[in-house]
Amino acid sequence: MPPTATSVGSDVRPTAQSAVALGGGHGLHASLSALRRLHDDLTLDQVTAVVTVADNGGSSGRLRGEFGVLPPGDLRMALAALCGDDEWGRTWADVVQHRFAGDGDMRGHVIGNLLIVGLWERMGDHVRALDWVGRLLGARGRVLPMALTPMDITAQVRGLGPGDDLATVRGQVEVATTDGEIVSVALDPPDPDGCPEAVQSILDADWVVLGPGSWFSSVIPHLLVPELREALETTDARLLVVLNLEPQQGETQGWGPEDHLRALLAYAPGLRVDAVLVEERTVADAPALEAAVEGVGGRLVLAELAEEGPDGELTARHDHERLAAAYRAIVEAD
Amino acid sequence: MPPTATSVGSDVRPTAQSAVALGGGHGLHASLSALRRLHDDLTLDQVTAVVTVADNGGSSGRLRGEFGVLPPGDLRMALAALCGDDEWGRTWADVVQHRFAGDGDMRGHVIGNLLIVGLWERMGDHVRALDWVGRLLGARGRVLPMALTPMDITAQVRGLGPGDDLATVRGQVEVATTDGEIVSVALDPPDPDGCPEAVQSILDADWVVLGPGSWFSSVIPHLLVPELREALETTDARLLVVLNLEPQQGETQGWGPEDHLRALLAYAPGLRVDAVLVEERTVADAPALEAAVEGVGGRLVLAELAEEGPDGELTARHDHERLAAAYRAIVEAD
Repeated sequence: MPPTATSVGSDVRPTAQSAVALGGGHGLHASLSALRRLHDDLTLDQVTAVVTVADNGGSSGRLRGEFGVLPPGDLRMALAALCGDDEWGRTWADVVQHRFAGDGDMRGHVIGNLLIVGLWERMGDHVRALDWVGRLLGARGRVLPMALTPMDITAQVRGLGPGDDLATVRGQVEVATTDGEIVSVALDPPDPDGCPEAVQSILDADWVVLGPGSWFSSVIPHLLVPELREALETTDARLLVVLNLEPQQGETQGWGPEDHLRALLAYAPGLRVDAVLVEERTVADAPALEAAVEGVGGRLVLAELAEEGPDGELTARHDHERLAAAYRAIVEAD
Repeated sequence: MPPTATSVGSDVRPTAQSAVALGGGHGLHASLSALRRLHDDLTLDQVTAVVTVADNGGSSGRLRGEFGVLPPGDLRMALAALCGDDEWGRTWADVVQHRFAGDGDMRGHVIGNLLIVGLWERMGDHVRALDWVGRLLGARGRVLPMALTPMDITAQVRGLGPGDDLATVRGQVEVATTDGEIVSVALDPPDPDGCPEAVQSILDADWVVLGPGSWFSSVIPHLLVPELREALETTDARLLVVLNLEPQQGETQGWGPEDHLRALLAYAPGLRVDAVLVEERTVADAPALEAAVEGVGGRLVLAELAEEGPDGELTARHDHERLAAAYRAIVEAD
């Protein structure tokens, strides 16, 4: 018998909550792999991913160049992370993630990318097409692009030329791997319209999860879409910032956790940070970090999040179960 | 309540039958589009397609060249013909049949071909992978390759050189469109192993449907696979031969219905033909045709099968409903 509004007792669960994860690439894939576990155990009743669409590398970059479409790769990876945990979902996720080898025209292309582009061509509706791929995968949530037009990330970078001269670096791949120090990033074209469903999902959410991921090329781009930034600054959702396991080679080399928080607030001064999740084994000065987090109005949550390597050393990969346990504790504590 | 073994009454249907359709390309697509209707109305409880794997043109030819795989195109088209008749099945059939335009590397590739090749790479099992595409489409039947190794069709052709000299034409596309007169065809490599599930389906079937389709490049190739030929000659299934609406430009130019039947029996003398289905509006000399069909032991079935053009003229396309009605009448009369 389904529970009724008047039912009471020890088996009444608190109302499930909804979460929106913002990011791109492998960081978002890890975050969604954790959030889908919170969906499976009914802690969350809705998971939505809002994905950067500035990728210019690999299979996505080639398809973008050939068809002028949004880069599909990060959207595909997010969908695969949410796949149903049964034979059907796992099989199609595996197929959708399959990358062609060989040395011909197809080399390096990923089947899911081709499928998404085909659905876009066929349906002429980005969101509807992604929802269909979600249905194929039995996805435990929805995947949305942050905007409906492809764009590039540009960065002002110090240290590539003489002295303090700034150079412009263009392209998500190039920004993510620059040897210089990133002073600022922008989108080109600037101020794109946000995907309406993505904006609404942030306004409706109980939780927004920002990061982990390449800070300047996967996390901050969302703050450069005016409607998304405004939604993030005005939503009643609580904001969880998840810092990376290690500085991103290149783009945030030498940065501490405080620098990552400061960069977010530089692009969205109105952000209200509720919690900051950090791998505890990477923290050198816990009191200083706690002060920095409290300085932006949040609480610091330390937890073991990384997979360990064969000799017990920390890897750069999140352990999905540990990340899920940390998310669960944060959502349930609130 | 499900019917039991002892239930009687006016709603007891005769036992449904199974059918295997052999062919390739558009002819097989038409035949399956009709047979799935017999599956929908419970006349048939099982439909299986056994598909030629000698295509060397277009997207299939490129993928075969790039990956050394079976050409996927005719398999894809057969699967799409069997798709579920609901939003899910129609949507995925539409996507699977989508051909990329543009002028880059992907131009002309068909999404379903890429999906099938990816599944083969991923699963390493031709039949299992095709069954998964069938599940995606909610297919009303199974699609099998006639063999598990790619091959070429070669033809000995008269009329391309001086006098009665024979020239060798190589490749399904080249054979199907040759300007010369085809004297004989062969497979290279010769005598390939049949796909075991395809052989078994013929042995188990109530009906085998041969044609319509390009006679020398889509229909006769099955008879050149020794295990398939043997199964066709020994099965208890009744054999329905479906002749084309018009001679194939090139390969059977100038041929009458009798020539098509004679060609089949030249490659498989032990075939027992039960029925021959012919578009009645293309028959010039019905008594002669009837004699020819009776000469191979079968009965002639004349029906309107072709779509009509805007001025009432016959097109080269089958009307799926009419073809289904003809199949239904043949299966139920037997």
